[in-house]
Amino acid sequence: MIGNVLVGQSGGPTAVINSSLAGVYKTAKDQGAVKVYGMLYGIQGLLEEKYLDLDEHIHSDLEIELLKRTPSSYLGSCRYKLPDFKEDSETYEKIFNILNELDIQYFFYIGGNDSMDTIKKLSDYAHTIRSNINFIGVPKTIDNDLEITDHTPGYGSAAKFIAATAKEIIRDSLVYDQKNVTIIEIMGRNVGWLTGAAALAGGMDCEGPDLLYLPEMDFNLDEFIKKVEELQKTKKALVIAVSEGIRLSDGTYVCELVDNVKFTDQFGHSLLSGSGKYLSNKISTELGCKSRGIELNTLQRCASHMASLIDITEAYQVGAAAVNAALDGKTGEMIVINRISNQPYQCNTGTYDIHKIANIEKKVPLNWIKEDNTGMSEEFMEYVKPLIQEEVTPIMIGGLPSHINYNKF
Amino acid sequence: MIGNVLVGQSGGPTAVINSSLAGVYKTAKDQGAVKVYGMLYGIQGLLEEKYLDLDEHIHSDLEIELLKRTPSSYLGSCRYKLPDFKEDSETYEKIFNILNELDIQYFFYIGGNDSMDTIKKLSDYAHTIRSNINFIGVPKTIDNDLEITDHTPGYGSAAKFIAATAKEIIRDSLVYDQKNVTIIEIMGRNVGWLTGAAALAGGMDCEGPDLLYLPEMDFNLDEFIKKVEELQKTKKALVIAVSEGIRLSDGTYVCELVDNVKFTDQFGHSLLSGSGKYLSNKISTELGCKSRGIELNTLQRCASHMASLIDITEAYQVGAAAVNAALDGKTGEMIVINRISNQPYQCNTGTYDIHKIANIEKKVPLNWIKEDNTGMSEEFMEYVKPLIQEEVTPIMIGGLPSHINYNKF
Repeated sequence: MIGNVLVGQSGGPTAVINSSLAGVYKTAKDQGAVKVYGMLYGIQGLLEEKYLDLDEHIHSDLEIELLKRTPSSYLGSCRYKLPDFKEDSETYEKIFNILNELDIQYFFYIGGNDSMDTIKKLSDYAHTIRSNINFIGVPKTIDNDLEITDHTPGYGSAAKFIAATAKEIIRDSLVYDQKNVTIIEIMGRNVGWLTGAAALAGGMDCEGPDLLYLPEMDFNLDEFIKKVEELQKTKKALVIAVSEGIRLSDGTYVCELVDNVKFTDQFGHSLLSGSGKYLSNKISTELGCKSRGIELNTLQRCASHMASLIDITEAYQVGAAAVNAALDGKTGEMIVINRISNQPYQCNTGTYDIHKIANIEKKVPLNWIKEDNTGMSEEFMEYVKPLIQEEVTPIMIGGLPSHINYNKF
Repeated sequence: MIGNVLVGQSGGPTAVINSSLAGVYKTAKDQGAVKVYGMLYGIQGLLEEKYLDLDEHIHSDLEIELLKRTPSSYLGSCRYKLPDFKEDSETYEKIFNILNELDIQYFFYIGGNDSMDTIKKLSDYAHTIRSNINFIGVPKTIDNDLEITDHTPGYGSAAKFIAATAKEIIRDSLVYDQKNVTIIEIMGRNVGWLTGAAALAGGMDCEGPDLLYLPEMDFNLDEFIKKVEELQKTKKALVIAVSEGIRLSDGTYVCELVDNVKFTDQFGHSLLSGSGKYLSNKISTELGCKSRGIELNTLQRCASHMASLIDITEAYQVGAAAVNAALDGKTGEMIVINRISNQPYQCNTGTYDIHKIANIEKKVPLNWIKEDNTGMSEEFMEYVKPLIQEEVTPIMIGGLPSHINYNKF
């Protein structure tokens, strides 16, 4: 028998974030946890005492399989930044009161680098008040921008969806015998891991995108138009992948050129969308050819019907590893994935000090991006290929993938 | 041995249009055709003498299976309207010269109601010049707007993709504990068959979209905002499906409210997109809550990784039936699908006079759309459900679906 467990999900969801939840839940139960609670809507919901007893909602291994195949955060999520405890200890007292009431010994938070800030602050606070609750971070993000870990669960499935969709869009772009330019806008505020994954579309049966623009490199509008014009001399249908977060050298986001409106979320991040449409309108106007902007939008993070088996398996494994690390007495750490080899692809898990991970964004190395924007380096391709391998069969009922919910819907 | 065959694809592609091509090709070969030519880029390409010998490109049953799973038009497509032959007989003489040079006996055109206009005109012209070439139309369109036939190949797979994606988007919309409205913009200029299919997302594990707006009914902006406000009193996350072609009562497309720019294609159709974004901006501004517009865009017509087995099978069958109809001496007809029963779902194929089909759009019956926009009628659901059933396994290589092309790419 082990102490009670509390698990939460935070930040933008992914297609496999629930597989990590399943990994935490199943491993905790197998290790003898009497109670596994789930906080609803992350730490923000917990502050409002919103939580549930997972045993009352997950009744069988079949339901665990369904949970692994359900996109978006089963427990709901939040984008909530904890205050500095030196300035506002009240919030912390409230949280720890709830943890004590529920007799929590192990606290797991599945999220990205913003969410790891929560684990960092809670474990730091626990240290000052000499609480012995273990706080462990479980990595999750489609953006793949977490430090230390080789890659992050959620990225592989998003990359697979992007590459598969890019292949289908490229086929579609070839259908008419006329000049046309398709811009695929891909998520990624400051990092281009997802946009780079569009390059995976290239292969024996597909040329892949003709140009790729990642936020790691300044975007130059004139050079872009010139490059498109140049490529059009030899090729009628062009497909270009751009990150939503591409910026001019003065720091202006391309999508801000549309309407000069700026939205920000609670972490101060700009909400970006529209770069693709802006560039496709620009091409239509300046080059006088047909152009279309396609925003992959939230489908990138919720298309669990295209999840990668590698990703869904690793998402489960980091959840399981988090429980075992906590049982080993660890706290203030995040589970990391270490790549051992590419051929055959092998990884194991470890733990790492959360202070070296929280709030830090890992960018795509500049030498992994071809300078002429025509593709990604061999190193990048070798890095990303294993992550999209193999498929998970959705449980199809009536022709559609089935999902699980804690309330009826 | 039978005479030479020429087959072409026209109009917007679908996820299963190549399955019809496979049906024509395989059946023609099985029936003894010496030559099966494919026109490149439809009748427009043929006029430029662009065609190929399919035997030189399809070498095995495995490649036929790959063709069935390849989205977009293998042979390319066009949106080309033939002139009236009484006004311009030159174009027709050119076409028939090419047909005679290639010794064509059977002419198949896979397309929608615009493309059927081509079959109508060519068969009418053949009649006046006493040509004995057989012209048969093979139905194809994601829009499902062809008359006489119960439904049209291409629709089922698009419907399946839309419903599956709507389920995933609805899950994603529930993630944060705050008011938000997601508008899914779905293809459909004048008919709402595709938008109606979003209702399929509703079931045991999903509430489905909260509101549906089809172009068959006038759209009222004030009533829309009022309805959203009303629903928000009891539900935080709303998901609304709208057709790209929704119009105000004065005929203005909602997407034209964005910028007053109007593009039209060669058939005089407006090119529509932006209704979803416009409405989501409107909601943000007027109701002060988070809102997001998601355009499913070309993914609806090219997501062959989500093709319905029923659809891909029927697409093949109408191709095969076209060959058999031509061999029976028919001309100036289109293959139609007749539904025999829903339980079990059974259909057969027949032929129908092309003059009763070309250029006519079949709309969703008004009594199949709930007047309060909250869903579709039972009749609609019974009609559409069988069409999205069962799955086709894409041939996955390296984690991505494989496709076939006549040139290397």
